[in-house]
Amino acid sequence: MGSKYISISVIKRLPRYYRFLGILKNAGMVRISSRELADRMGLSASQIRQDLNCFGGFGQQGYGYNIESLRNEIGKILGVDAGLKTILIGAGNLGRALAVQMDFEQRGFNLIGIFDKNEALAGQVLRGLPIRPAADIEDFCKENGVEVAILCIPYNESVENIDLYMSCGIKGFWNFSHYNINEKYPRAIVENMHFNDSLMTLCYQVINAE
Amino acid sequence: MGSKYISISVIKRLPRYYRFLGILKNAGMVRISSRELADRMGLSASQIRQDLNCFGGFGQQGYGYNIESLRNEIGKILGVDAGLKTILIGAGNLGRALAVQMDFEQRGFNLIGIFDKNEALAGQVLRGLPIRPAADIEDFCKENGVEVAILCIPYNESVENIDLYMSCGIKGFWNFSHYNINEKYPRAIVENMHFNDSLMTLCYQVINAE
Repeated sequence: MGSKYISISVIKRLPRYYRFLGILKNAGMVRISSRELADRMGLSASQIRQDLNCFGGFGQQGYGYNIESLRNEIGKILGVDAGLKTILIGAGNLGRALAVQMDFEQRGFNLIGIFDKNEALAGQVLRGLPIRPAADIEDFCKENGVEVAILCIPYNESVENIDLYMSCGIKGFWNFSHYNINEKYPRAIVENMHFNDSLMTLCYQVINAE
Repeated sequence: MGSKYISISVIKRLPRYYRFLGILKNAGMVRISSRELADRMGLSASQIRQDLNCFGGFGQQGYGYNIESLRNEIGKILGVDAGLKTILIGAGNLGRALAVQMDFEQRGFNLIGIFDKNEALAGQVLRGLPIRPAADIEDFCKENGVEVAILCIPYNESVENIDLYMSCGIKGFWNFSHYNINEKYPRAIVENMHFNDSLMTLCYQVINAE
């Protein structure tokens, strides 16, 4: 089922389904209708049926969806067991927050290395991993077949180092650095986290409320 | 110009325009055509013309957009000078990262208080503000007219405290806690930051690349 082509706009909604289904599962629910799921998620029931029909029969007319099966199937499609070999670059406040708090293993990632250019941090341990000097990134990637890098570094550090990261064979970036990697490397796979975009949208909504 | 109704989907793209225009401005550029802006942003030129036409004449046929004027106008619409009175709740790794690194003042927010339920942190200073005990949130909000809260607390802490936050008059939430505030308070203004959603989208794209 996962092999069928699914558009990126549907894919981007799948983690949200996965999240809501997880909450329902934890609340002890077994089945849910598309209408009720729609109400909880703030989507239309037809949108949900359309999205979930992309990968086949988890709902039966009149019976709704089995929450656990549907969640498991979405998890398989997203690759929650992929264990992608991942490094975190930048062990400042944000890097530490992610290292400590994220459930990488349950989302398809295996965090195997943490790096920082500040050598004074070398040897400190985060999530059971020693912080290594940034100078070791290249060797580490080549030895370990690193596939993904999480960039918790300033903009300029990304600009300076992106050629290196690409030459190390890194395919995917979870990018908190605000540098637009795809401008130089259109084929790199990048998820950008732009905190400011969300913050500015919030500001607009607050000042325009009522 | 800002008074005209603009759909939320356009609004959500405005911070992205603002960001790209800021990069171009910093690079010393003065004007840009909709086509070139489109190429840089990975949008279509007609999408850009359509979005920017929502708030009037910054482009002239054949001359493109004046980068600084357009950015300033978008900033005004988004409310970058609004100075919304804002508190940060939760001074763990993530809260600290945001307190230290975000340019709140340039995005419409005025961070005036930081709170944590761990009283051992009380008095520590972040961004020039003392960390206060969470028990003081209510009084602080009422005395200072707080409009926005940034929630860097675990899910359960949000569940337990949302009634309090609402009763304090907080209108907008920048929510990192994963709790779905709108299920209980449909009229609360919420920007949810779901790190996992982005991470899972990245995983799908990496495992399905090529």
